[in-house]
Amino acid sequence: MPEKIVIALGGNALQSKDSAPTAQARLEVVKRTCGYIAEVSQRGYEMAIVHGNGPQVGRIVLASETAKDTVPPMPFDVCGAMSQGYIGYHIQQALKYALSSRGRNYPVVTLVTQVAVDRNDPAFQTPTKPIGAFYSEAEARQLETEKQYTMGEDAGRGWRRVVASPLPRRIVEISAVRLLWDRAIVITCGGGGVPVAENPDGTLEGVAAVIDKDFAAELLAEEVGADVLLILTEVEKVAIRFGKPDQEDLGHLSLAQAAQYVKEGQFGVGSMLPKVEAAMKFVRANPDKRAIITSLDHCLDALDGKTGTVVTFA
Amino acid sequence: MPEKIVIALGGNALQSKDSAPTAQARLEVVKRTCGYIAEVSQRGYEMAIVHGNGPQVGRIVLASETAKDTVPPMPFDVCGAMSQGYIGYHIQQALKYALSSRGRNYPVVTLVTQVAVDRNDPAFQTPTKPIGAFYSEAEARQLETEKQYTMGEDAGRGWRRVVASPLPRRIVEISAVRLLWDRAIVITCGGGGVPVAENPDGTLEGVAAVIDKDFAAELLAEEVGADVLLILTEVEKVAIRFGKPDQEDLGHLSLAQAAQYVKEGQFGVGSMLPKVEAAMKFVRANPDKRAIITSLDHCLDALDGKTGTVVTFA
Repeated sequence: MPEKIVIALGGNALQSKDSAPTAQARLEVVKRTCGYIAEVSQRGYEMAIVHGNGPQVGRIVLASETAKDTVPPMPFDVCGAMSQGYIGYHIQQALKYALSSRGRNYPVVTLVTQVAVDRNDPAFQTPTKPIGAFYSEAEARQLETEKQYTMGEDAGRGWRRVVASPLPRRIVEISAVRLLWDRAIVITCGGGGVPVAENPDGTLEGVAAVIDKDFAAELLAEEVGADVLLILTEVEKVAIRFGKPDQEDLGHLSLAQAAQYVKEGQFGVGSMLPKVEAAMKFVRANPDKRAIITSLDHCLDALDGKTGTVVTFA
Repeated sequence: MPEKIVIALGGNALQSKDSAPTAQARLEVVKRTCGYIAEVSQRGYEMAIVHGNGPQVGRIVLASETAKDTVPPMPFDVCGAMSQGYIGYHIQQALKYALSSRGRNYPVVTLVTQVAVDRNDPAFQTPTKPIGAFYSEAEARQLETEKQYTMGEDAGRGWRRVVASPLPRRIVEISAVRLLWDRAIVITCGGGGVPVAENPDGTLEGVAAVIDKDFAAELLAEEVGADVLLILTEVEKVAIRFGKPDQEDLGHLSLAQAAQYVKEGQFGVGSMLPKVEAAMKFVRANPDKRAIITSLDHCLDALDGKTGTVVTFA
């Protein structure tokens, strides 16, 4: 039986380093990324891809807000769905080519995916994710009144809307992912999924929230019974005392060790912490499986056990 | 065996009649539309949905062009992919609810879909589809020089970019559509598909073009071996001498009759003609199958043979 992998692909694997990259520049980066993913598929792994969307949805929201006097602005959930179309299109175009140039004719498909969150998630009490344009304080106060936005001051650069980052509870289109799983590379839960909440009458409704894509990938990995949750980021290995002279890169992390390091505050809150937490959640739910945190260019070696940080139950 | 239907859903079934509808207003219209589609599914038909995207992609392009000094503008193919995410999300959310409120738990899924066109398609010689913002003649000339756009004067309202409307040649993600066909309602080829052309090295590349969604639906219907191509539009039946005192609504059209009426110029070039031509193409390729042109609220009766215009080979 081929091993089943869910790949969580960070924003860095999808964007160019330009300060204002065009869609074409991003596509070039996606093509390079897809070369690595095609190699993984070539080795016989079955896989799904969950990608981030931070820079892309940021630009969609910014364009929508900038043009608001000409075109009614898009709600944030719709911007998320649009980013799934945009990024999914680029990945499936580039990955299909990377596969076929390796002699592999295999379907690649993007599913527009809703992920349900709980309206009572405590995250809604303390929104933390800044999105979209910068405003003056006066404009910010007006948006708070007029649109019931939560606004926050962003590192001295101005005021921005902030939204919550609740946990993913349910992947609405999971049955379609399962149907396609062993016969296509499925791109799903893009940007963590389009965030929706369930109303009392059973309807789903888009909410303004950002679901962490590593947690969405973790939920997907549980739902499809993946063998490996592969979280790709900027570094080859997770480190403790990161950036200090005695930084230590970790080849392996047990659940207990990881919990200890989390308690010590070893991992950056907006960066490595959610990745380690997602990895911990996966092996806690699946004690015989593993999570791997590594960089794109080391992913093949990491799958072979040669590098990366492998997180296991014991 | 249940009958297999490909539904081509016109823009009017997806947009509110407001001059500048919000995404929320559009969603309300989509909900109503999905009630009818859920009834068709309820009757046991298997189906895929191909939707138009004219108003939505128009607004995405317009927002992108309006905000161009703040955010690099999106290429037109990316705008199309974004509209698939946007509209697909709304349809799958609304249709899933319409099904479940009828006691039917059935997957609904949107596939981001590329449709290949031929760079030698004669349509590229005479672009006809206006897209995006209006410009002055001077601005238009500048865009022609700087970006190699084709610009055209649009009915006295100003200058706009015009793009070609080539025929769809191949649905890139067709294998995924086939995998899902009998186990989900598949939303695919939205807006006629994201238009791509094949390069000599085998890569696909987005092109600025608008593929007619009725022709994309027709190609899909051929590819999946559909029994019915159901084209939904504003009117209950196709008419000849349309809008004249002696207008005649047609309950049935053979291929030969249809060809005669097309020759007489009975059908509007940007409106009914492509629908009739798509229907003709389908029954020419499948002489034992049928195409139906009718309105959303008559689609159930039309499937039962009680109304609509049924197009058959003989």
